[in-house]
Amino acid sequence: MTKNHEIPYKIYLTEEEMPKQYYNVRADMKNKPAPLLNPATGKPMTAEELEPVFCRELVKQELDNDNQYIDIPEDIRNFYRMYRPSPLVRAYCLEEKLDTPANIYYKYEGGNTSGSHKLNSAIAQAYYAKNQGLKGVTTETGAGQWGTALSMACSYLDLDCEVYMVKVSYEQKPFRRDVMRTYGAKVTPSPSETTEVGRKILAEHPGTTGSLGCAISEAVEAAVSKEGYRYVLGSVLNQVLLHQSIIGMETKIALDKYGIEPDMIIGCCGGGSNFGGLISPFMGEKIRGEKDYRIIGVEPASCPSLTRGRYAYDFCDTGKVCPLAKMYTLGSGFIPSPNHAGGLRYHGMSSIVSQLYDDGYIEARTYEQSEVFEAAVEFARVEGILPAPESSHAIKAAMDEAKKCIETGEEKTIVMGLTGTGYFDMLAYGKYIDGEMSDYIPTDEELEEGFATLPDIEG
Amino acid sequence: MTKNHEIPYKIYLTEEEMPKQYYNVRADMKNKPAPLLNPATGKPMTAEELEPVFCRELVKQELDNDNQYIDIPEDIRNFYRMYRPSPLVRAYCLEEKLDTPANIYYKYEGGNTSGSHKLNSAIAQAYYAKNQGLKGVTTETGAGQWGTALSMACSYLDLDCEVYMVKVSYEQKPFRRDVMRTYGAKVTPSPSETTEVGRKILAEHPGTTGSLGCAISEAVEAAVSKEGYRYVLGSVLNQVLLHQSIIGMETKIALDKYGIEPDMIIGCCGGGSNFGGLISPFMGEKIRGEKDYRIIGVEPASCPSLTRGRYAYDFCDTGKVCPLAKMYTLGSGFIPSPNHAGGLRYHGMSSIVSQLYDDGYIEARTYEQSEVFEAAVEFARVEGILPAPESSHAIKAAMDEAKKCIETGEEKTIVMGLTGTGYFDMLAYGKYIDGEMSDYIPTDEELEEGFATLPDIEG
Repeated sequence: MTKNHEIPYKIYLTEEEMPKQYYNVRADMKNKPAPLLNPATGKPMTAEELEPVFCRELVKQELDNDNQYIDIPEDIRNFYRMYRPSPLVRAYCLEEKLDTPANIYYKYEGGNTSGSHKLNSAIAQAYYAKNQGLKGVTTETGAGQWGTALSMACSYLDLDCEVYMVKVSYEQKPFRRDVMRTYGAKVTPSPSETTEVGRKILAEHPGTTGSLGCAISEAVEAAVSKEGYRYVLGSVLNQVLLHQSIIGMETKIALDKYGIEPDMIIGCCGGGSNFGGLISPFMGEKIRGEKDYRIIGVEPASCPSLTRGRYAYDFCDTGKVCPLAKMYTLGSGFIPSPNHAGGLRYHGMSSIVSQLYDDGYIEARTYEQSEVFEAAVEFARVEGILPAPESSHAIKAAMDEAKKCIETGEEKTIVMGLTGTGYFDMLAYGKYIDGEMSDYIPTDEELEEGFATLPDIEG
Repeated sequence: MTKNHEIPYKIYLTEEEMPKQYYNVRADMKNKPAPLLNPATGKPMTAEELEPVFCRELVKQELDNDNQYIDIPEDIRNFYRMYRPSPLVRAYCLEEKLDTPANIYYKYEGGNTSGSHKLNSAIAQAYYAKNQGLKGVTTETGAGQWGTALSMACSYLDLDCEVYMVKVSYEQKPFRRDVMRTYGAKVTPSPSETTEVGRKILAEHPGTTGSLGCAISEAVEAAVSKEGYRYVLGSVLNQVLLHQSIIGMETKIALDKYGIEPDMIIGCCGGGSNFGGLISPFMGEKIRGEKDYRIIGVEPASCPSLTRGRYAYDFCDTGKVCPLAKMYTLGSGFIPSPNHAGGLRYHGMSSIVSQLYDDGYIEARTYEQSEVFEAAVEFARVEGILPAPESSHAIKAAMDEAKKCIETGEEKTIVMGLTGTGYFDMLAYGKYIDGEMSDYIPTDEELEEGFATLPDIEG
């Protein structure tokens, strides 16, 4: 199928065209996302309760369900100019390879050194911390993309950065660790002896290789127990989706510039930060009935919070030091099988995405990882970019939709989020190429074990 | 020093503005680069002699000293559209950090999956091989950037790709190896038992960890001993500099678009592919007396071919299967000290760059690696991009020139080539951060040992 190439391979906005405001999809939502709850009182967390943990301005953003647009401070916009606007790429080569009438576009967020979209929120959170006169921030990281992004942002603003890195990643990904250290971060394998919750977990589970939920607990404790520090999180929270709306805003401006009308928007879903950000302005139009996009979230079959989880209040972390969030969740006790590669391994899902899914605005689907890597390699070979395993879930779904168009002959326009690169996931790629990659779908009994760890709270 | 930001942070050409022709600087040169010699006869290699090794069209390009512009075939230009134009970035953040009146620009070639400029020539060479109806190509790789680039290009064109990877890199950089395998390449650690020259080297030096010169010998043997294969090389040759002129052409178009007049052009120098490509159109103007740019090549103090080498005919490879090239060289027997990190470790220098240097058009300087990494980390923290160790030589020189401007108060315009990213060099970054990086400058006696391996040929 030979197509003309009227649309450029890569649509770049000019720096003047870049968004000056974040898009707050909560303003559009008829059913607002459920508030965070204080686990002690069972009541919604107030700003006063949140401020010892999070920066003041970020608390305001977290609780703001009303303002549709929120200004992006000039300093953050200047930082964005270092690596944004990111290109919206027309996947001409993939279309030709698949021989599909579909038009495929991907918003590529992997072009910065952190290798993913995480930098969009990292610089915002670091900026507000700096602006509040704080000394530093703490966080957790699993696969390492978020930790790298935060290290870069903090180094730029001369802010201390303490990263609790899931121990198994710390050991298996020394290069990721060293990128963070190059950017001046202090990186501690979690669980560690440096926090009370870490010591408790080590005592209960000696030899544990850690988990994201456990690293969150340690990072929160480290933040609240030190003067001048706050905790920052790379996904799940409303504020993070707000910052990531820059992805969706840029995508929309680029599409509008060329008069392109998408039929569907596809993103991978872990905690929901990329997906929520990508879909935000489109979701607004959909909720208001102006457009009828299909909006598709893709998650791993091995960690299926949207597709097989329960919509309930749950702990955000293993140590249960965080507020409770209402979300589609597998229970904070759920841990993906050890053969699960890459990210998208968090037990829950952003409250915003969860509510939108519950309200029927979002479709969700799962794939097993070997079919995801198959799509990733096929994509890499024709489009050049070696995608992150996370992003490849969206690629797989987009390819499947494009193949359906071959059967129907429809020229659908597919837009997907390509969140990052796979440079630090070569261990998994190597396994795939050597035919050593396996899949795992949790049984209903295993999911029940996770659900048994849900708190006993109505929400 | 507060500057206004009239020039965007990143200058992107449109796809229409991208060059449609390569720039052949040999057409401008008063003294043409010395021809390759047949080691058996001592006479210049003819097209007929070169064609069993290289593709026909590439031989033509290799021998073409006359045509100033050479058309880029449309298929290559379409591939370029996947990752080009590359941005010319204004280093506002670095300027502010240094508090310099200088204006610093860098042409960033690391934004593609191969992580460097090497892809520019890889796709051209693979295209001409495919066009000639060949089955595949063979090559060598050291640090892995070239092998990755060639794998990507071959995979796109469905061409076999066999890479001989220096054994020490093969073992220390399994992730680099697996990127190539992901793109379908066959990767063999060199020296290997698969070639005669490999077996000979193994017999003479059991336990050797290999060298670039040795891997070249194996790749050439593999190409000429199989039907339908040719050898391709990622640097040094005239044809490679020709393809890399896309860097310089884009840079010049971007500068002209904004009326920016550079005072100096700075690039790192290994075999000379990036440097030669970056400077080509500027060098043309300089030779013709239209402009008076300073053109600065930067090499590691541990492998100083331009600054301390001899200008002589030398072997291109350890196994001495290749034609002889006249170049600034340390002798094919020279091996950089084991603590040398990253690339820029080839014993010789492109004949074009060598002749231009000998004719006085180019300045050269060296830096030791710990000061280069210091500059790299400083750059990474303000500009976001984590640079390759190779590229960081240019960064160090640019920063030094910008610091001189602080003293003199001059607002010089500095343009440098940032060839690639350091994602696969974290071992070296880790060492630097841990204070375990050492420097080494070869003694005159050690250089004499290298010169003793030069062939006894007048040129």
